[in-house]
Amino acid sequence: MTIEIGFLVFPRVQQLDLTGPYEVLAMVPDTRVHLVAKEMGPIASATGLVLTPSVTFAECPVLDVICLPGGSGVNPLMEDAETLDFLRRQAESARYLTSVCTGALVLGAAGLLQGKRATTHWAAHDLLAAFGAIPTQGRVVRDGNLITGGGVTAGIDFGLTLAAELADEATARAIQLHQEYAPAPPFDAGRPESAGPEILAAARERLSATRREREAIVARLARSGA
Amino acid sequence: MTIEIGFLVFPRVQQLDLTGPYEVLAMVPDTRVHLVAKEMGPIASATGLVLTPSVTFAECPVLDVICLPGGSGVNPLMEDAETLDFLRRQAESARYLTSVCTGALVLGAAGLLQGKRATTHWAAHDLLAAFGAIPTQGRVVRDGNLITGGGVTAGIDFGLTLAAELADEATARAIQLHQEYAPAPPFDAGRPESAGPEILAAARERLSATRREREAIVARLARSGA
Repeated sequence: MTIEIGFLVFPRVQQLDLTGPYEVLAMVPDTRVHLVAKEMGPIASATGLVLTPSVTFAECPVLDVICLPGGSGVNPLMEDAETLDFLRRQAESARYLTSVCTGALVLGAAGLLQGKRATTHWAAHDLLAAFGAIPTQGRVVRDGNLITGGGVTAGIDFGLTLAAELADEATARAIQLHQEYAPAPPFDAGRPESAGPEILAAARERLSATRREREAIVARLARSGA
Repeated sequence: MTIEIGFLVFPRVQQLDLTGPYEVLAMVPDTRVHLVAKEMGPIASATGLVLTPSVTFAECPVLDVICLPGGSGVNPLMEDAETLDFLRRQAESARYLTSVCTGALVLGAAGLLQGKRATTHWAAHDLLAAFGAIPTQGRVVRDGNLITGGGVTAGIDFGLTLAAELADEATARAIQLHQEYAPAPPFDAGRPESAGPEILAAARERLSATRREREAIVARLARSGA
């Protein structure tokens, strides 16, 4: 039985959120990895790289794994009925419901984080509570069949964690070796607590427009009782 | 002045080799990142993700940074005159000549590694010597304006290293924070020495067809005096 894995893709997705775990999961035996979008045709990611969906919502097979990547393009998705309906429908039968980075906010907007421990990008972590989730620190956080990853590059750690679930640990280790995943960051600035106050303040400033928009959306969703 | 950065893309490229550093470098101020290919039109990567070139060899601007990603698709490139000519021409004026993973073999085939310290994917590392390079262990290896990265995921460490060169260390740290690059691999199997003999043997077996083909190409290039 082929394991069907679907990453949602949408305008201004953060492409590394999905290209990291895509590369890992596509190497798990007997998987088929889809890029699922509302419609076919090229999609520009947040930093410009163009992605090509492989299947539409309408044609998408029943997924064993649903994964929501993040990015600034998450904001409109949180109020997009067609996307939220697709997620809720697929979530009913999926073995794993997953996200990387701010993709978790879309799962939240679909009502799929209620009462669950979850994580997301550090700059959006506090917003999880608005969806009834239990915001939990961690690079990869698991609660039952919900697996959420932190910001962007956490997708690779998430992918390897899921690969071990879908196959076994030996398979995940073999993929890690193939991808020479023995990371050696040249700097230590990957978390708010290590980046230092100046870089953190500048990052918050750069993200402030997206953040304000996100807060307004969360407030609207709360008012509408979603 | 815009910094022009070009990643070569070709059939069966290992997409994470380039999507990792793409995401990093696209966030450096005043950069423009190109996916450069022989011709326009969709390109299937080694694991299936479809990439879309943004510019052809013929239309490509003079590049400040050339980056060769790797993948099994590297093999035909090593004997592809059009690709090697493009690289040699661009290398004359580029500020940085770079590669991730087995992309280094294409730089070698173009004669651009002669007498230089370089690295590549662990399974191809010994082949560098055939190109007159000095095979050097390291996640990111620098020799003058040549910067080479190790296998696949080393592209992110390479990208941050280069970001600090193109801008400054504060910029690179800010990008690292944005991408929450504080890796926490769930397993320790990213290098031959940590993966254990069984997983290493299986990985070598899986790569053996590509490896044999690669050895034959290297032998042909040596005979032709390239």
